[in-house]
Amino acid sequence: MADITEMLIRRGYLWQSFEIYGGMAGFVDYGPLGNGLRRNLERLWREYFVINERAVEIDTPTIGIEEVFIASGHASSFTDVAIECERCGKIYRADHYIKEKLGIETEETIDFASEVLSTYDVRCECGGKFKEPENFNLMFSTKIGPGRGKDGYLRPETAQGIFIDFKRLADYFREKLPFGVCQIGRAYRNEISPRQGVIRLREFNQAELEYFVHPGEKKHPNFQQYKDFSIKLVDKMDEEHNISLGEAVEKGIIAHELLAYFIGRTAEFLIKAGIKKDKLRFRQHKDDERAHYAEDCWDAEAYTSYGWIEVVGIADRGDYDLTRHNQYSREDLSIFIPYVEPVKIKVKRFVPKMSSLGPKFRKKSKKVAEAIENYSGEISDGKIKIEVEGENLEIDSSFFDIEEKEETVYGERIVPHVIEPSFGLDRITYAILEHSFETDVVDGEERRVLRLKRWMAPVQIAVLPLLSREPFLSKSDEIALKLKEAGFYTEKDDSGSIGRRYRRYDEIGTPFCITIDHQTFEDSTVTIRDRDTTGQIRVNEEELESIIKQLLESERDLKEFGVPFK
Amino acid sequence: MADITEMLIRRGYLWQSFEIYGGMAGFVDYGPLGNGLRRNLERLWREYFVINERAVEIDTPTIGIEEVFIASGHASSFTDVAIECERCGKIYRADHYIKEKLGIETEETIDFASEVLSTYDVRCECGGKFKEPENFNLMFSTKIGPGRGKDGYLRPETAQGIFIDFKRLADYFREKLPFGVCQIGRAYRNEISPRQGVIRLREFNQAELEYFVHPGEKKHPNFQQYKDFSIKLVDKMDEEHNISLGEAVEKGIIAHELLAYFIGRTAEFLIKAGIKKDKLRFRQHKDDERAHYAEDCWDAEAYTSYGWIEVVGIADRGDYDLTRHNQYSREDLSIFIPYVEPVKIKVKRFVPKMSSLGPKFRKKSKKVAEAIENYSGEISDGKIKIEVEGENLEIDSSFFDIEEKEETVYGERIVPHVIEPSFGLDRITYAILEHSFETDVVDGEERRVLRLKRWMAPVQIAVLPLLSREPFLSKSDEIALKLKEAGFYTEKDDSGSIGRRYRRYDEIGTPFCITIDHQTFEDSTVTIRDRDTTGQIRVNEEELESIIKQLLESERDLKEFGVPFK
Repeated sequence: MADITEMLIRRGYLWQSFEIYGGMAGFVDYGPLGNGLRRNLERLWREYFVINERAVEIDTPTIGIEEVFIASGHASSFTDVAIECERCGKIYRADHYIKEKLGIETEETIDFASEVLSTYDVRCECGGKFKEPENFNLMFSTKIGPGRGKDGYLRPETAQGIFIDFKRLADYFREKLPFGVCQIGRAYRNEISPRQGVIRLREFNQAELEYFVHPGEKKHPNFQQYKDFSIKLVDKMDEEHNISLGEAVEKGIIAHELLAYFIGRTAEFLIKAGIKKDKLRFRQHKDDERAHYAEDCWDAEAYTSYGWIEVVGIADRGDYDLTRHNQYSREDLSIFIPYVEPVKIKVKRFVPKMSSLGPKFRKKSKKVAEAIENYSGEISDGKIKIEVEGENLEIDSSFFDIEEKEETVYGERIVPHVIEPSFGLDRITYAILEHSFETDVVDGEERRVLRLKRWMAPVQIAVLPLLSREPFLSKSDEIALKLKEAGFYTEKDDSGSIGRRYRRYDEIGTPFCITIDHQTFEDSTVTIRDRDTTGQIRVNEEELESIIKQLLESERDLKEFGVPFK
Repeated sequence: MADITEMLIRRGYLWQSFEIYGGMAGFVDYGPLGNGLRRNLERLWREYFVINERAVEIDTPTIGIEEVFIASGHASSFTDVAIECERCGKIYRADHYIKEKLGIETEETIDFASEVLSTYDVRCECGGKFKEPENFNLMFSTKIGPGRGKDGYLRPETAQGIFIDFKRLADYFREKLPFGVCQIGRAYRNEISPRQGVIRLREFNQAELEYFVHPGEKKHPNFQQYKDFSIKLVDKMDEEHNISLGEAVEKGIIAHELLAYFIGRTAEFLIKAGIKKDKLRFRQHKDDERAHYAEDCWDAEAYTSYGWIEVVGIADRGDYDLTRHNQYSREDLSIFIPYVEPVKIKVKRFVPKMSSLGPKFRKKSKKVAEAIENYSGEISDGKIKIEVEGENLEIDSSFFDIEEKEETVYGERIVPHVIEPSFGLDRITYAILEHSFETDVVDGEERRVLRLKRWMAPVQIAVLPLLSREPFLSKSDEIALKLKEAGFYTEKDDSGSIGRRYRRYDEIGTPFCITIDHQTFEDSTVTIRDRDTTGQIRVNEEELESIIKQLLESERDLKEFGVPFK
C-alpha cells in the first residue's frame, strides 16, 4: 500500500487536501490524473445507467434547507455515537474506538457504547475517562442568509434532490413508469474522526440512480442480459453462493428481478471500469443492518488493502422517501396509472329526501342533506351516522333513498417504489488504482505498471520523439495535435531517455506510446508500444488514428495491427 | 421573459429548488434538459481551455479550512454591507436597497451606506428605521468534526484549491512555465437577499482557469489567432472601441497580449456556445472596481432581460495569491527558472583574520568570525556592522580581508503571475437560453423555437414514428438505439400528432427530427427535418448516421445532404 500511495501522490493522482496548511483528515484532492480517471468513470457510468436506461440526469444544490432532511429522517437519524474524553477533550467515534481497543464489534447505540465503556473501563489514550456517549449528527450544518439565517445542511446523499423534484420528473416522463433519475455530484458526511485516507471521506462523490417503478412490477425488460451471469453473492446469513442471478431470484436469495438486474449491471460496469472480478462480491445486508424501510439491500464490495470495502449500495427503498416527503410537504407525490381497460364499478349513492328532512331539521336541513349526500359508509339497522356542525346524528331510511350507480374507473393513483443503485465514486476510483497497480520484470529490471483499462486511462497516448531535437520535435507535435483533435487524451514528452519515458508512462497507466524515430523520416512510419506486453509494432502514419481508436475501444492485441518487433 | 421562464420550467430546463417546501431564493435545480445543456457547455469549455492549452484539470474540495481563506483574504474582505430593520428585523443588502429606493449607485462601504441612510432618512418597507450598517461575510460557514469542531467555509471560488496545490502542480509540469490548471465545480456565496432567479445564486457553477506565467512573458503562442479578431470593448473610461485585439494591445487599452488572447478565446467560446455576438461585450474594470492586486481585469457581459450581466471575468491577478499563501503557509511557492545560459557573477567575500580576532574577542571570537563570513552588506569608512549574541559590533578592516570570487548562477527563483479567466456557467447557460429563444410563424401559426447550437442541444435527435403502432414503433426503436450507440443524445416519441411532436422538439431546441413513415418500409428511407427552417430531406437509412454526424458538428445546410420537400 505504501508503494501505491507514494506513486499516486508523486504522479498526480491523489493529494492530501490543504497540504501546505498541515492537511485535514477526510478530504482529498484529485490531481490531473486522478481527476481524469474519475471523469472517465463518470462517463462510463452515464453510459451504463443513464443513456442506455429510460433515465435522465438532473443537478440540484448541495446545500439543502432543513425541511428536506427533517422529512428524509436525516435530521434525527443520520448520527454516529461519539465519546469525548473528560480530560483532554478528544472525541472519538464510539464503535471504532471500542473495536480498536477491545476488538469488539458494537451496535451503534448510546446504550451499548455506555455499557461497554463502563464494563471494560475503557479510557482515552491520554488516560482520561470518557463522558457519557452522545449522538452526533453527521450532516455539515450552515446558515443560509444573514442574521440568524435559515438552517441548512450539506446533503448527505444526492438522492433527496431527486425525491423532492418527483412531481416535475413524473411530468417530464408523462407519468409513465418505470423511469430513472440520476445525479452525479458531491455529498458530505461530517465523520467524527476519519483515518482511512480516501476510503472514509467527509466530502465525496456519488453517482446515484433512483429508478421509480410500479410496486407490482419489479422487473426490467433487459433482465435476460444478466439471467445467466454469475458473481459471488454473500447472503444475509453469511452464506456464499456462486450461482447465476436468475437462480438467485428463483431461490429467493435476491428479492426480485429488478434488484438482480442492477446487481448484474453494476458488476458488469465495475469490471469494465477495472475492478477485478475475483476481488468483487455482492453482500446482502443483514436484517439488523438494513434501513427499516428497505425491503432488500445488496452492497458491492471490492477487496483492497483496507479489506473488503463497500463501493456500491443497491437498495429497494420501497415507497418510504416519496411517502415521507408527501407527508411533510403535503404535496401529492403519487402518480396516476391508467388501467389497460377502464373498469366499471358499482357505487352506492345516498339521496336525501327533502320532504321529510325539512319538517324535522328546519334550518339545519340543508346541511343534513349535504352530509347524507357525502356519506360513503355502511348502513346498520337501516340507519347511517353523520356529523353536522359537530353534532352526531343517526338518520334512518325515511330520510334518504339509496341509488346504485355504475361508474367508470380509468386507473388508480399509486406511490411508486424506488430501487436505488448508489455508487461511491472515490472508493471505486481508488479500488481501480489498487487493482491495476502491479510490478513485473522487464529487461531484468523491476517495473511498476498501472494496468488501467484502455478506455479509463487519463493519458491514453504518449507521443515520444526518440531524440529531443529537430525534426523529431516538430513531427511529434504534429502527431500529438492530430490525436488530440481526434479526441484522444494525448501527451507529448521529450525529456529523458526513451526507456525512462516508457517507464514513466507505464507507471501512470498510459496504454500506448508512439515513438518517432529515424525511420519515421524515411518511410512515414511510427512505432506503437503496448504498456502491458512492452511489445511494439510499426505502422504507417495515416493508419495511426484508426488503429489507436480500435485499440482504445477494445482489448484487442497490438499484434493484430502489425508485425511485432523489439 | 415570462414566456421563456414558463417554458424553461414546463419543459424541464430549470426548476425552483425545494419547490414543494416553498422554495428558497438563490438556488436552482437543473432539470434533465438544463443539466444536458450545462454539461455540454462544460465539455466545450474543456476543449477550449484545457485540452487545447498546456493545461490540466484538477478537483479539490468545496469545503475549505479557515487557514485558506484567511490567506486569500476572503475571511476579512469577502463581504457586503447589510442593513437590518430595527422594527421588523428584515435584512437587506445596502447598495441594492439604496439603489432600488433612491436610484443612487453607492460605494460598497459601511460609511457611505450609513451616510446615505441618514441623509435621506431611508426606511424599511415596514416603516422601521435601520440599525447601523454592518459588514456581512458572504462565505457559508460550517464546522468540521464533532464538538467545537474546526472552522470551515464553502469555497467562494474554485481558484484557491489550485493556488494551495501550486507546488504539486509545478512539479507535475516539471517547473516549466507557462501552464494552466482549471477546476469546474460548485462555488458558494451567501447572498444577503438574492432576487434575480438564476442570475444571483447562492450556489453556482464555475469553470476557472489559472494560467501561470513568467511575470516578464505575458504572451501566448497562439495570439496570432485573435490578433485581427474584433469584439466590442468598453474601457475603464466607458469608452467603446470596435478595433481588433491586436490594436487594443498596441494602443494600451488591454494591458498585454495574454489578456487579449483570453478575451479573444473567451469571445470565440461564448459565440460557439450560443451567445449572440451583438449581445456580447467586454468591459474593463474601473480603477476603483478592480481588486487592489489586479493589474487589469475585463468582464465578458451578455445582454439579457436583466440588462448587461457579467458572465466571465478575466483578470491579471499578478503574484498576489501565491505570495499570500507563501506568507501564510511558509511554503516556498516560487519556481526555479534556469537561464538559457548560466551567468557568471562576481561575489565579494569577507574572510575573518583569526590572528587579530582572537586576542580582541577571546571566547567570542569564533562567533564574530562566523558573522563576518556571513556578512553581505556594504563597507562604510572601512568598517562593517555585525550582530553577535544580540550585541551590535563595528568591525574595522584589521579584522578581515576582502576576496572577490566568481560564481556561476544557473537561474533564478520567481513567483509566477496568474491570469485567470473565470466563467459563471449558470449565467452563461441562462444567457444562451435567452439568446436562443424565438418565436416565428410556421404554417400560419405562431411557433416557439429554441435555436440552440446543434452541438449544444441536450436532445440532439428525436426519432418519430408517423403512427403510434407497428411496424412504425419497432423501426423507430431500432433507429433510436443505433443513434444512441453512435453517441447522439436521442429520444423516441410516439405520443400525439406528428405536427405537435415537431413543435415540442422545436421548443426544447432539438435540431433534427427523424420521421419513420410509410415510405420507410418501401425503400428504407427516412426523413430528416431541420428545426430552424422546418425544411425536410429524405435519406437512406444507411447514410443516416454519417449525415447526422456531419450536421451536428457543423452548421451546414440540410439541403446539402438531399433533395428538400415539404
